[in-house]
Amino acid sequence: MTSFEALIDRAETLLAPVIRETPLEPSPALSQRLGVQAWLKLECLQVTGSFKIRGALFALQQLRDSGASEVATCSAGNHGLGLAFAANLSKMPARIYVPGQVDPGKVELLRGMGADVRVSPHPGFDETEAWAMEEVQRDGIPFISAYDDELILAGNGGTLMREMRRQLPDLETLILPVGGGGLSGGMLLSAAAPKRLVAAQTLASPALVRSLEKGTAVTRMDSAETLAGGLEGGIGVRGFEALKTHAPQVISVSEEEIKAGVRWTLATHRYLIEPSSAVAVAAALRPEVTVSGPTVVVLTGRNIGPDVLRGILR
Amino acid sequence: MTSFEALIDRAETLLAPVIRETPLEPSPALSQRLGVQAWLKLECLQVTGSFKIRGALFALQQLRDSGASEVATCSAGNHGLGLAFAANLSKMPARIYVPGQVDPGKVELLRGMGADVRVSPHPGFDETEAWAMEEVQRDGIPFISAYDDELILAGNGGTLMREMRRQLPDLETLILPVGGGGLSGGMLLSAAAPKRLVAAQTLASPALVRSLEKGTAVTRMDSAETLAGGLEGGIGVRGFEALKTHAPQVISVSEEEIKAGVRWTLATHRYLIEPSSAVAVAAALRPEVTVSGPTVVVLTGRNIGPDVLRGILR
Repeated sequence: MTSFEALIDRAETLLAPVIRETPLEPSPALSQRLGVQAWLKLECLQVTGSFKIRGALFALQQLRDSGASEVATCSAGNHGLGLAFAANLSKMPARIYVPGQVDPGKVELLRGMGADVRVSPHPGFDETEAWAMEEVQRDGIPFISAYDDELILAGNGGTLMREMRRQLPDLETLILPVGGGGLSGGMLLSAAAPKRLVAAQTLASPALVRSLEKGTAVTRMDSAETLAGGLEGGIGVRGFEALKTHAPQVISVSEEEIKAGVRWTLATHRYLIEPSSAVAVAAALRPEVTVSGPTVVVLTGRNIGPDVLRGILR
Repeated sequence: MTSFEALIDRAETLLAPVIRETPLEPSPALSQRLGVQAWLKLECLQVTGSFKIRGALFALQQLRDSGASEVATCSAGNHGLGLAFAANLSKMPARIYVPGQVDPGKVELLRGMGADVRVSPHPGFDETEAWAMEEVQRDGIPFISAYDDELILAGNGGTLMREMRRQLPDLETLILPVGGGGLSGGMLLSAAAPKRLVAAQTLASPALVRSLEKGTAVTRMDSAETLAGGLEGGIGVRGFEALKTHAPQVISVSEEEIKAGVRWTLATHRYLIEPSSAVAVAAALRPEVTVSGPTVVVLTGRNIGPDVLRGILR
């Protein structure tokens, strides 16, 4: 079995010619507020608009090296975009299953990148994923989960954590959005993990809080209305186990706080971020947030459409 | 006298530890539209939000090396921000003269960076600059023009042009916003200059068109209302001479086209740009734009406030 660190090594080598080393930008405003030196990790400036390209490209190429000639996933969000981009770059066919209620613009975008998009007969994500799993099993195509997969954990969280550690060797506290646990879990499983973690989630879909209460991963949640669609749903088993061991401070934020986080980032640093990223900013702005030493807020993505942005600025 | 290339060498060495090498991102949408391979140069992701940090930091450090203990400029925009940042970093006092009608938020921002901000008794830019020149002459403080200065031309346009040439050696056409001529002039004076230039300006303040008609630089223009405040006013003599020799295609765009350029960049690439940058995007979207070979649209800055953005998205 390959160790997790060896997987991250392999992912870093493979990703280097494709991805950007995104800047770590000092935030005087947050530093003053938190009473420590604080930075923003601008992973929102990554190729495809989010960190998801890291895990998607790594998983796809590992599967190709193992003999796969096509891959599939279920996502109408950043993971789908990352996989479509990776497949296009690797000249490998990719099937992307999307929920029936998907925004037609996103289907267009994915098809424009060459993906074979399959729109589900079911409106929501969970039924769509179940349907997609049946389809790919029938057709013998490997399926790349958006979060509960060791390659995704190493590619997404593992490589991003190492990059931040190189940029700021004495990094102590990390504030980041937690949804399925693919990013946070991969970071915590790596040797570069921070001492302290603040896990930010949306109140609308608090899988981490529920899982900590139960002591085991809540892998399915009722579908919920939230601007932070990237954080909606259950949490993966591997990611949750890493989070539980680490005992993070969990902060759940409201839709209004998410909007305020988008506005704060725009007004203070002039960066565009998507609502799922703003969840971490909102947590950093909460009075009860507990940090120590050099602190980094991870801005995970910028994929926000003009209509949603207009609503947030209103 | 130091040659222009030697000045750029010096600027590059000095800037390297401070500025970002900003990405050159392929634009499939523009490539399809223009019929050539097209990229966006994401200089809007530069430290301080625009390319102006390049020239400001270089000019400031050259003046310090010549014995100056304080510097001054007149700007409430990106050049002022760049100089305030550079002065703070270099632990050198900087006086920034701003027009009386300045947005109080900008004064706050500049003061927060440690600048000695002097608000003018005159509302507009031209009278403010004249007043500022008297003040600094009386006090014996060197004044750094936002554009008509060789150090600024080498620092802004010279270093950015070389960076793009390294990223894309066969770059042939450049589409960029032209205002005072500090960016375009510096690019054209450098050995890395492109074969073909499309100079985009705002219809509200067409100094380049007027200057080409007259055959000499129109250094002063009546103040004009435009979203592209960074491009308002006259053109510098050095920059204009370089532009005139190069005979660019000039495209002047309306306020509505500028707004559409901000929206296009947001919808298509998910980057936030300021209206002065969107002028180049708007020119690239015009049917009469004439390009050949590998083509780059330079996105120069992202300093747009939430209120202006809200108005543009409406």
